[in-house]
Amino acid sequence: MDKLRRIMLIVAYDGTAYHGWQVQDNGETIEGELNKALHALTGEEIAVIGASRTDAGVHGLCNRAVFDTEATIPAERFADAINTFLPEDIRVRESMEVDADFHPRKCATHKTYEYRIDCEKIANPLMARYAWHVKGPLDVDKMKMAAQVLVGEHDFTSFCSVNGVTLTNVRTVYNVDIIEEKEHIIVVRITGNGFLYNMVRIIVGTLVQVGMGRIDCARMRDILEACDRTKAGMTAPANGLTLVKIEDV
Amino acid sequence: MDKLRRIMLIVAYDGTAYHGWQVQDNGETIEGELNKALHALTGEEIAVIGASRTDAGVHGLCNRAVFDTEATIPAERFADAINTFLPEDIRVRESMEVDADFHPRKCATHKTYEYRIDCEKIANPLMARYAWHVKGPLDVDKMKMAAQVLVGEHDFTSFCSVNGVTLTNVRTVYNVDIIEEKEHIIVVRITGNGFLYNMVRIIVGTLVQVGMGRIDCARMRDILEACDRTKAGMTAPANGLTLVKIEDV
Repeated sequence: MDKLRRIMLIVAYDGTAYHGWQVQDNGETIEGELNKALHALTGEEIAVIGASRTDAGVHGLCNRAVFDTEATIPAERFADAINTFLPEDIRVRESMEVDADFHPRKCATHKTYEYRIDCEKIANPLMARYAWHVKGPLDVDKMKMAAQVLVGEHDFTSFCSVNGVTLTNVRTVYNVDIIEEKEHIIVVRITGNGFLYNMVRIIVGTLVQVGMGRIDCARMRDILEACDRTKAGMTAPANGLTLVKIEDV
Repeated sequence: MDKLRRIMLIVAYDGTAYHGWQVQDNGETIEGELNKALHALTGEEIAVIGASRTDAGVHGLCNRAVFDTEATIPAERFADAINTFLPEDIRVRESMEVDADFHPRKCATHKTYEYRIDCEKIANPLMARYAWHVKGPLDVDKMKMAAQVLVGEHDFTSFCSVNGVTLTNVRTVYNVDIIEEKEHIIVVRITGNGFLYNMVRIIVGTLVQVGMGRIDCARMRDILEACDRTKAGMTAPANGLTLVKIEDV
């Protein structure tokens, strides 16, 4: 038997056509496409382990997938080799060998998501796949004030969909930046040590309602401390969300 | 009979799904979708006149469509009203009444196109609809030098597909800017008084070959003066191109 190596892939994808990252019985997924491509390439039955199980319709620029293989392809060459078996809306950007005990969800990481909001009066069709259209204007200063309440270690139960199952809802948010990227395009950029189910989308939905004046920004602390999903705002749609960075710290 | 008014629409579209602007026997077009939506809205048989007949797969942020109607809808309200009948990848951004003799192709205008190039080693799937993936690196300084040769009034026959039919191939290019928009994304932004068939795409294809070192930038003037399509470079694919501005001057 050839030596077993653990390989990590850095994966970018347009999530529009997929039922999310994680393999499901019905519908195509990013993980499923990676497993199929790796099988076609190596002949082995491979089930990758991902760093972030992004939802249906969410995009990724740098998700991580790890797998073990006996294939003798040089680690750095996996990227180009797998891409020839993948659909064009999924691209492996890099591949490298990692330690045999490396697990992409168990290492301490900082994850950064960006959420794009198109607040032009009429939606820009060139942004429609990657931004949530919200009839503006939004009060960005109020959104920034409300966002600062979230920074730090908190129980984020108010910003977690009820069907999320986790041991603890305590997470640390390092940064929430509200950036006016260009005219009518606002980006919410959030970095944390991990995110609960739908957490970024509920944070963005709540911040947008603050920006519209429908939620008073002074209420943000009460919403957080209530640990009650019904106190927060709406869940923003998936298409505006992109996983942009994962850093080991 | 109600008074006939001439209305102008400012139209944005993602061209990916369309066979270009102009109505064709086979396949859906932007113009065809506008005509259908206007018929549904007004009950009249309407054939809009466009400012720029963009090719299949080319995008627009501000194309213009003009039509005459007896409908009594206030001119500014047409935009929202038509959008309810249009697919989401076409949006009317504004509507206004214009003079009865206004023709969108006969007024003296400056048109600006942007062409996006993704020169990352592996294509970014989030740019794939709107950028041409070219394995970099490109020498941007050489591209800028070559581009300056095109500025001014010239016969652009070398940069026109042979099946283009026009009275004269003389056009004026006011600006060609090569912009490093972000890491690995280069934008060619070109403003002129009009463009021949495939002209922007052949200019970009040639500039990219200059950036790759396959065409010497010192040859650009000879290529222009040859008035011979076979002397210029390749035609860049449609998906990277967007009509971004039309200005009356």
